Amino acid sequence: MNQDRLWKTRLTERLGLRFPLIQAGMAGGPTTPKLVAEVANAGGLGTIGAGYMTATGLREVVRAVRTLTLQPFAVNVLVPSREIADPEQILRSYEYLLPYRERLHLRGRQTVPEPAELVEKEWARFQELLAVILDEKVPVLSFTFGRLPLDKITALQSAGTYLLGTATTVHEAKLLEEDAIDCIVAQGSEAGGHRGTFASSFSRAMIGTLALVPQIVDAVNLPVVAAGGIMDGRGVAAALALGAAGAQLGTAFLSCPEASVALAYRTALLESRDDSTVITSAFSGKPARGIANTFTSDWEACAFDIPSYPAQNVLTREIRSAATATGATEYCSLWAGQASALSRDLSAASLLATIMREASSVINGLGSL
Amino acid sequence: MNQDRLWKTRLTERLGLRFPLIQAGMAGGPTTPKLVAEVANAGGLGTIGAGYMTATGLREVVRAVRTLTLQPFAVNVLVPSREIADPEQILRSYEYLLPYRERLHLRGRQTVPEPAELVEKEWARFQELLAVILDEKVPVLSFTFGRLPLDKITALQSAGTYLLGTATTVHEAKLLEEDAIDCIVAQGSEAGGHRGTFASSFSRAMIGTLALVPQIVDAVNLPVVAAGGIMDGRGVAAALALGAAGAQLGTAFLSCPEASVALAYRTALLESRDDSTVITSAFSGKPARGIANTFTSDWEACAFDIPSYPAQNVLTREIRSAATATGATEYCSLWAGQASALSRDLSAASLLATIMREASSVINGLGSL
Repeated sequence: MNQDRLWKTRLTERLGLRFPLIQAGMAGGPTTPKLVAEVANAGGLGTIGAGYMTATGLREVVRAVRTLTLQPFAVNVLVPSREIADPEQILRSYEYLLPYRERLHLRGRQTVPEPAELVEKEWARFQELLAVILDEKVPVLSFTFGRLPLDKITALQSAGTYLLGTATTVHEAKLLEEDAIDCIVAQGSEAGGHRGTFASSFSRAMIGTLALVPQIVDAVNLPVVAAGGIMDGRGVAAALALGAAGAQLGTAFLSCPEASVALAYRTALLESRDDSTVITSAFSGKPARGIANTFTSDWEACAFDIPSYPAQNVLTREIRSAATATGATEYCSLWAGQASALSRDLSAASLLATIMREASSVINGLGSL
Repeated sequence: MNQDRLWKTRLTERLGLRFPLIQAGMAGGPTTPKLVAEVANAGGLGTIGAGYMTATGLREVVRAVRTLTLQPFAVNVLVPSREIADPEQILRSYEYLLPYRERLHLRGRQTVPEPAELVEKEWARFQELLAVILDEKVPVLSFTFGRLPLDKITALQSAGTYLLGTATTVHEAKLLEEDAIDCIVAQGSEAGGHRGTFASSFSRAMIGTLALVPQIVDAVNLPVVAAGGIMDGRGVAAALALGAAGAQLGTAFLSCPEASVALAYRTALLESRDDSTVITSAFSGKPARGIANTFTSDWEACAFDIPSYPAQNVLTREIRSAATATGATEYCSLWAGQASALSRDLSAASLLATIMREASSVINGLGSL
């Protein structure tokens, strides 16, 4: 076992965090400037989920966060792939989605994405987001779905930005270490939202947090943050026991009033159970964990292959928005981890303070064993 | 959170265990009397994996354990199902397996199991095993794949036998609590060997240990033992942090010299990686986690449904035995959890002492945070 705690705790020291707790950068809107700033002010690391943002949008949010806190914060981006979706799969999915559009009274015609163009656009947007992060001197950049281009790593680190990359296997963690980033987020199979898998077989990379974290801790000489299934002080204490330098929580913050989450989604989280979630590619073309509903079970029963990300994400975008706007949870993407049933109705600052108090109490209790 | 530690620790108190650590009762041979007794003498709870044993065989092993230790020990049984396998699926599987028999030079003709008869036989054997457990006053009975008949629960508890049932969801844990057994083993998705799922959808019940344990701890008023992905002191400390009263380790004990494990299997464990395992029904007809090989990938690619347990288990028995005997690991069932890469070449007593020393050191380290 790697006992070098000094090295492992560099995360909080380097970032000046009071608590080794990260609010995950969930894409698609939930991470409002208020949420990010409240987490930062309460001593954790808040993250702007910039995955689907434009460069202009990100710059506004970064500046909004800065009006609310002087503490460090993070931005999360999704590294685009070079994979071009299959045009036939796109057409089949387009047709399959038509009845959903009708049910949700979507009148206009859905544009069919041109897959090669989509890849170009995503890369262009990604470069623009990185330029904003560099320009705004964002303290921390976390990323998932892949590796950052090496020139960007150099540029960002020279500008003082701390880099957190997501790995779902030891192999991926080692690739990220080769790139000399600063810290690894080990995403276990319990995690809500998109799987970060980028260089391993998707199904083999469904490794539980408790099994994954110590193996990555042993394999790399970087601090490791545990992610997946952590909702309270017990989870944070367990993550630290496994050798992690900190814990990243996504789902736990979705039920905070500061998160921009539709009421129906929030209710679904608070009413969920341990076995409520499934892994589905139906919404985006990339495997992700969310609460099972009509949409996920329809696509599970469906025989054809789903077009790859981001093509499917573009195809379902209006459906997801309309479903969210009208509270039609059966067609919403209700991203959630496997411990979403432990969701609480607390403000971000209270949640963070409560979790850290619980973690202390758990650790004290263990000490008396 | 359920803070009633007194209640939670009743496991070690009631059983007079020095350490809250259980060696899992893996069926099929690995749990020799020597392994079980060494674990017991070192302060943990050793378990005889009686899943595939005859009543006579079990009685011999129980008596052999008793010549080696005065400490309490456990027996694990598999609760049979009433499900009758599909005869057509049995025939298809029989034919599909013929080339494997040839490759392994199995000369005789494989008998095709008569599925209804198989169910009757399994129930008869199960009743006989329970009769031996009762008669021999076995201190602890752990079981998986279902619930014990209520009359047996009463009889066993009256005889002083402590009952541990396996749950893979909160729902299953609540069913077991209704039966008034003594303790729940929460089996997370990382676990090696057969999934214990009996009253939940199999795929929904693939819940990571870190997410599952606290949810079961909150849901039931019984001590909970964490299982799945635990290999060292970090895992044990994490399990306790999650609110478990103890940890059950299977894979960790397979590489002990006291375990009866073929050299090739042992080597496969010691050389495995975090992403080496898959869930497969190919060997037994019931989903189980093991190291991927030719046999698991062949069946993954295969379009027909596998006959249900135990029919498929009977059909593959000779293949598994011959493959194990000849070191043909590509056709062996190499049951292993997702942290099998953390396997160590230590005697059972050293392993147990090392794990508990590590756990103490982890807990002390956390206290100074």
